[in-house]
Amino acid sequence: MVNVTVWNENRHEKSNPAVSEVYPLGIHGTISEFLSKAGFAVKTATLDEPEHGLTEEILNNTDVLIWWGHMAHDEVRDSIVGKVKQRVLDGMGLIVLHSGHFSKIFKALMGTSCDLKWREAGEKERIWVVNPSHPITDGLPEYIELANEEMYGEHFDIPAPDELVFVSWFQGGEVFRSGCTYRRGNGKVFYFRPGHETYPTYHNEQIQQVIINAVKWATPVKRSRPVYGNSKPLEEL
Amino acid sequence: MVNVTVWNENRHEKSNPAVSEVYPLGIHGTISEFLSKAGFAVKTATLDEPEHGLTEEILNNTDVLIWWGHMAHDEVRDSIVGKVKQRVLDGMGLIVLHSGHFSKIFKALMGTSCDLKWREAGEKERIWVVNPSHPITDGLPEYIELANEEMYGEHFDIPAPDELVFVSWFQGGEVFRSGCTYRRGNGKVFYFRPGHETYPTYHNEQIQQVIINAVKWATPVKRSRPVYGNSKPLEEL
Amino acid sequence: MVNVTVWNENRHEKSNPAVSEVYPLGIHGTISEFLSKAGFAVKTATLDEPEHGLTEEILNNTDVLIWWGHMAHDEVRDSIVGKVKQRVLDGMGLIVLHSGHFSKIFKALMGTSCDLKWREAGEKERIWVVNPSHPITDGLPEYIELANEEMYGEHFDIPAPDELVFVSWFQGGEVFRSGCTYRRGNGKVFYFRPGHETYPTYHNEQIQQVIINAVKWATPVKRSRPVYGNSKPLEEL
Amino acid sequence: MVNVTVWNENRHEKSNPAVSEVYPLGIHGTISEFLSKAGFAVKTATLDEPEHGLTEEILNNTDVLIWWGHMAHDEVRDSIVGKVKQRVLDGMGLIVLHSGHFSKIFKALMGTSCDLKWREAGEKERIWVVNPSHPITDGLPEYIELANEEMYGEHFDIPAPDELVFVSWFQGGEVFRSGCTYRRGNGKVFYFRPGHETYPTYHNEQIQQVIINAVKWATPVKRSRPVYGNSKPLEEL
Repeated sequence: MVNVTVWNENRHEKSNPAVSEVYPLGIHGTISEFLSKAGFAVKTATLDEPEHGLTEEILNNTDVLIWWGHMAHDEVRDSIVGKVKQRVLDGMGLIVLHSGHFSKIFKALMGTSCDLKWREAGEKERIWVVNPSHPITDGLPEYIELANEEMYGEHFDIPAPDELVFVSWFQGGEVFRSGCTYRRGNGKVFYFRPGHETYPTYHNEQIQQVIINAVKWATPVKRSRPVYGNSKPLEEL
Repeated sequence: MVNVTVWNENRHEKSNPAVSEVYPLGIHGTISEFLSKAGFAVKTATLDEPEHGLTEEILNNTDVLIWWGHMAHDEVRDSIVGKVKQRVLDGMGLIVLHSGHFSKIFKALMGTSCDLKWREAGEKERIWVVNPSHPITDGLPEYIELANEEMYGEHFDIPAPDELVFVSWFQGGEVFRSGCTYRRGNGKVFYFRPGHETYPTYHNEQIQQVIINAVKWATPVKRSRPVYGNSKPLEEL
Repeated sequence: MVNVTVWNENRHEKSNPAVSEVYPLGIHGTISEFLSKAGFAVKTATLDEPEHGLTEEILNNTDVLIWWGHMAHDEVRDSIVGKVKQRVLDGMGLIVLHSGHFSKIFKALMGTSCDLKWREAGEKERIWVVNPSHPITDGLPEYIELANEEMYGEHFDIPAPDELVFVSWFQGGEVFRSGCTYRRGNGKVFYFRPGHETYPTYHNEQIQQVIINAVKWATPVKRSRPVYGNSKPLEEL
Repeated sequence: MVNVTVWNENRHEKSNPAVSEVYPLGIHGTISEFLSKAGFAVKTATLDEPEHGLTEEILNNTDVLIWWGHMAHDEVRDSIVGKVKQRVLDGMGLIVLHSGHFSKIFKALMGTSCDLKWREAGEKERIWVVNPSHPITDGLPEYIELANEEMYGEHFDIPAPDELVFVSWFQGGEVFRSGCTYRRGNGKVFYFRPGHETYPTYHNEQIQQVIINAVKWATPVKRSRPVYGNSKPLEEL
């Protein structure tokens, strides 16, 4: 069984009634609910728990970690970020959602600013599939339409994704690389754009399908980290 | 000096006054004009010339070939397509424009259907730069805006580009991978979306800049084709 | 259940006792055997059957097609190649083995010559994993060592793979991109280098593991081909 | 004119006569010499200079920075690394040589451990071209052979390169992705493997050709950083 940990900053939910109305269980609660129904073993973790809920024991027993953060990226301790990064290199899958583009862990794995254009205007978004054989698109139509979302626009300052899965269209004139896969060490990383805290995006069944597919895709393969360092030649082995 | 051959089907220009009004020199004439000004040695070739204007001598003396075709893809002889393909594998650059996505040469080099969605509605197009360090974007702003263009929409049935340089936004709700690079053998290929025959797209200076940049990028390196076939081991060399 | 068809030219087996000794069931028989044990529903098809064993009914019921050919590539009928290619674009997975690099179907999907260096000298080969999170490497050690194999050397004239999974080392001084993934339309393609007909390569359990993993990876997603052609804008939908 | 700064740790040269014999001018001196002859405006900078020789003025006037380091990676100050990284994102090219794979700047731009296998045994290395149309291979034969080099072997823990240009073969049984390009922000990065301090690698004319080609390739395009942050919609622009 695949072990998923859903990490959420969980601050907007506490301070903004508009958010807690849309996500009475918290964003982590909603995501955790549909992942459980999909058959994964799901835990949650949030910023204000000890060690942000990401103890070594929890990390070591997580196959795929989901990350939602926004207003408190700076409060995430560097030592925890370091441990999460090491777990990704060791094989743990990581799915970074929406404003998580500016999280310490995503920036550390990308090596770029991860900056972008944004606008909160409740615009229509269409998330187009551009990679129709990719397992993350399983069961999806040609595009997902969201009536109201925050706009994210190019240039998105990321490394060219290993695989570009989705490209978003926004009413106001922008496009965005909305679904991007990366491999880092033994681990797989997926960035997925939608999910502003004031819109019911994670209640959308197609969005849920993407995240379910991404968890399956990001599940680690069964192999140890390669051996590094000083190495003997063929003849002496 | 870089030798460029601009190939154009040159049929719309003969049959449709709306086209010959926008391109009195033919699409090839307009493209040839701004490339000459940019310092390239430019020739043109068209479908109705003997061997479509692409004799072996001309192909062998072409560093970069530009291709615009639309209504008469099927009239391009397979033997000529074969020679063009071999020249690309040998090192010649190839720039495929707009409706050239359905040309025999592009489909032969891609291995896919190269199909797409389209609509002729004179919509606004914004061509966003998503690869800001790429030489094909030299001197360009963040996006090129065209007031009226034909829409091309995803899914565009191409192999994932080696480098994705531009993504287009269209008023009607679509996105499109508008600037795509590929390497085939010793040759470099660039697909660039805009350029419907009834719009003055190739008179736009930013569009011209892209094509000028692309010619420079696609210019062959100085090296022979690798050696293939039966090969001796290290010790015997 | 995943339906696999193993296609084999099956000519060396008939004419060369050295081959039929190593593969008394034919290469297709050996591959079919370990895939069946792994839980797939496996059929075989060979060149000399009517329609090369690849009728429309069989193709339409194949999720993943495996292809081994060598001395008789030219005898494969273009009409069958066309049907196989269309099925790949429609979603069927394709795994091309060893000398299949020069098959019509692989060349048609790649758009290049697919040429390479080769040498039959029974050299040691080491197939190194360079993409340790890829599902095709599941359960594998850092490299697979084959005591005797035909050498294939760079330059391998293929498009840059979407994902490079394996790189081979050969005793005589060459390297080779041995495991390459490509996406074409709705279908996934994997090229895997080893498997010269006179060596017991497909009896090697690690090689079998790669092919089993590749079948899983290449299994189609559940979605129809995208809609292509003339398209209405957002407002009219 | 392209401004190149060659940065070298310059410690082996001071402490190990075997190194200063091979590189009496220091590794930076030798590299600087052949780059000057090739027509670039070249400066050098070393670890023990104030600010490691990388003041803001120097960085701001550098188009391409070359980096060689090994035994003192940890002594490079984080504040300088941060400035170099920002300059790369702003457009400066960066060429990382050999043991620079473990430099702070390379690891920060890659997001991985950048670890590898190694062995100092003076083995033969063959650096094969696998991307024959790439400008970094201009004028090169099919492979570069070095009689004696340190071995670097896979798995090399880097993100999949945007373009894989070279793959090395080593006598002892290993392979290595030896020439890798990456784009980060507005900047281009090239990693090139050979160059152990005790071997005359940088005196080899083909190795010099690669570095000259790489400087040309990494030269910034003429454009500003994209605009990031809050953005107005199309209608209001």
